[in-house]
Amino acid sequence: MQNFIFYNPVCVHFGKGQIAALTSEIPTQFKVLMTYGGGSIKKNGVYDQVMEALKSHTIVEFPGIEPNPTYETCMKAVEIIRKEGIDYILSVGGGSVLDGSKFMAAAAKHQGEDPWDIVLGKEPVQEAVPLGCVLTLPATGSEMNGNSVISRSSTGQKRAFGSSRVMPQFSILDPETTFSLPKRQVANGVADAYTHVLEQYLTYDVNTPLQDRWSEGVLLTLIEEGRKTLDDMQDYEARANFMWAATMALNGILAAGVVQDWATHMIGHELTALYGIDHARTLAIVMPSLMEVAKDNKRKKLLQYGSRVFGITEKDGDEDQRVLSAIEKTRQFYESLEIPTRFSAYKDLDIKPDTPQIVAKRLSDQGLTALGEKGDITPEKVEEILALCA
Amino acid sequence: MQNFIFYNPVCVHFGKGQIAALTSEIPTQFKVLMTYGGGSIKKNGVYDQVMEALKSHTIVEFPGIEPNPTYETCMKAVEIIRKEGIDYILSVGGGSVLDGSKFMAAAAKHQGEDPWDIVLGKEPVQEAVPLGCVLTLPATGSEMNGNSVISRSSTGQKRAFGSSRVMPQFSILDPETTFSLPKRQVANGVADAYTHVLEQYLTYDVNTPLQDRWSEGVLLTLIEEGRKTLDDMQDYEARANFMWAATMALNGILAAGVVQDWATHMIGHELTALYGIDHARTLAIVMPSLMEVAKDNKRKKLLQYGSRVFGITEKDGDEDQRVLSAIEKTRQFYESLEIPTRFSAYKDLDIKPDTPQIVAKRLSDQGLTALGEKGDITPEKVEEILALCA
Repeated sequence: MQNFIFYNPVCVHFGKGQIAALTSEIPTQFKVLMTYGGGSIKKNGVYDQVMEALKSHTIVEFPGIEPNPTYETCMKAVEIIRKEGIDYILSVGGGSVLDGSKFMAAAAKHQGEDPWDIVLGKEPVQEAVPLGCVLTLPATGSEMNGNSVISRSSTGQKRAFGSSRVMPQFSILDPETTFSLPKRQVANGVADAYTHVLEQYLTYDVNTPLQDRWSEGVLLTLIEEGRKTLDDMQDYEARANFMWAATMALNGILAAGVVQDWATHMIGHELTALYGIDHARTLAIVMPSLMEVAKDNKRKKLLQYGSRVFGITEKDGDEDQRVLSAIEKTRQFYESLEIPTRFSAYKDLDIKPDTPQIVAKRLSDQGLTALGEKGDITPEKVEEILALCA
Repeated sequence: MQNFIFYNPVCVHFGKGQIAALTSEIPTQFKVLMTYGGGSIKKNGVYDQVMEALKSHTIVEFPGIEPNPTYETCMKAVEIIRKEGIDYILSVGGGSVLDGSKFMAAAAKHQGEDPWDIVLGKEPVQEAVPLGCVLTLPATGSEMNGNSVISRSSTGQKRAFGSSRVMPQFSILDPETTFSLPKRQVANGVADAYTHVLEQYLTYDVNTPLQDRWSEGVLLTLIEEGRKTLDDMQDYEARANFMWAATMALNGILAAGVVQDWATHMIGHELTALYGIDHARTLAIVMPSLMEVAKDNKRKKLLQYGSRVFGITEKDGDEDQRVLSAIEKTRQFYESLEIPTRFSAYKDLDIKPDTPQIVAKRLSDQGLTALGEKGDITPEKVEEILALCA
């Protein structure tokens, strides 16, 4: 096991009716900026529940945070935070609203010239407006970590930053608030969470049996409960189990002491930036091909994953065959969520034949020339991976 | 899944050389009370590492916290905390030192008449001296929770209390600091952690597949790595894996949304109070018999536990037989740690024949007449369980 620090002070309120906890979680004297997205919370009752819980608070609303939240939108909120003297940010929505809110929280307190430097990692977050979260879409894990992904419209960039200072102080997870989601978003959430686990688990072994079993536990839960929640979109138990699994998939506990990959995310972000493909879908496209290209590095874990998650045993072939079976089962899992894993299925997007070269160059331009757990996913390997995605 | 709140802000520093993190974890201007036990930390180098890390701090030492820490000892520390104006408590040792330190932290700030009321649950912890921990014995999980068990010599009581206000702000877990432990203490630690998981897992099912798999992951890790760490007491990887599993066994994450038991602990505490049997050993004595008596309540989970942890399948008999096999395997596991699971093996302790009646009465006197996940472990059932321990 590698040395590590684990710190996660997010207070999670989980279950039916938990939005009422807002009343005591945010001090009454605080002026609250309530951030949300396209307004679905006004249709599914979440907005009303939040307003009821915060009826003694002063609230300023900031709607309109888009999927893949942009620097440009967030900076408008930063102006309001400063002008209105906002004390607290309450993010009501999915991972995009929360990621945007994390960036505003840091940007509003930023002392340097351009808060974009935070996203670029040039300047650490020194201070942030405190924030809390009502989560309405299980997927990104943002509700229990300090990570955020922000896009910049003017330059077409999509970048991630992280700081414990932008962890939500609390996150409210009521599975019922997610019942009105479109099936596609739920499926994306399952795929997103699943891939988060693979990024932390499917690398090389440093003797972490507990972390491995917990990762496998999340994967199995996502496979089993993910199916159930898509088959019956109003099944509370299945949705609750999926929601908790998605949170656990990226709250740091699976990463403690292990070696991580994240190349699939880096490549995927570029596909979203270029073609607007849903984040989770980019992961489902890239991951199987990355597993294929990196299968020697990941060999031991691929065999363990195949065995423990998919029940692939020695009866199913020699080691090489079992590795390929584990990769194929992964592709089938994404496809079972009705998420196509090949560019050819995304016909309406006009994906350019030289996409592998374009993405490799975009990553190189960011200095990302040594991705993956061994740093051997070079621009050439990125091209190779994306060529396999055709 | 049941509704729940999960909150665990303990910052864990895990790995070789992590004691050095003390320097930055405790502000230099703080006056620190360093609590420890019988002085083993002076022989194994931990004391020196702590002193080196805190060489710019003002330290007051409070040695002599006993196993099963007493109210009487802790109250001496409380006097010092008040008289010396202590700002921070640093617990250096195992769960007993830490449990004692948690009580002092709360007692020193207690406004009421007798701080024992905190332990009795009559008064909540309103405030506590901040504390941190250097853990030298993996077992109790106290390093990542707000629980504490305190004994009172004058009355022969042993009681547990809990509050998030006495959670350590940080805990330093360096597996190397545990290499000098006697084998018996390591074995006890494995049994203790194992039983913590069973108390949270082996109840009735409320549809929590992820929590179940994580519990099973900890159990399997304790079985596998527990064996390894006892067979080679200097194997860093095995000790690290055991240490992390013991922490995860009782930091609240396995308990999220599930139904819990804890009757084995309540009964076990009385055996320690009566006969001084090591805490973990009382659990190993009580648990198999409790499983037997409560097997109908726990039936579904016993079958799942037998299957996933011990590989007991339909080939091994009908359901009744598989339930009994799972219980027998549990007993064998404790015995494999050289922990006897029957009173008859504790010959030197003069265990009275009417122990079942004595313990049942002691629990009744505390109002504990409805233990277990269904509240149906009555005093009569306690007698029945302990009669089976003969």
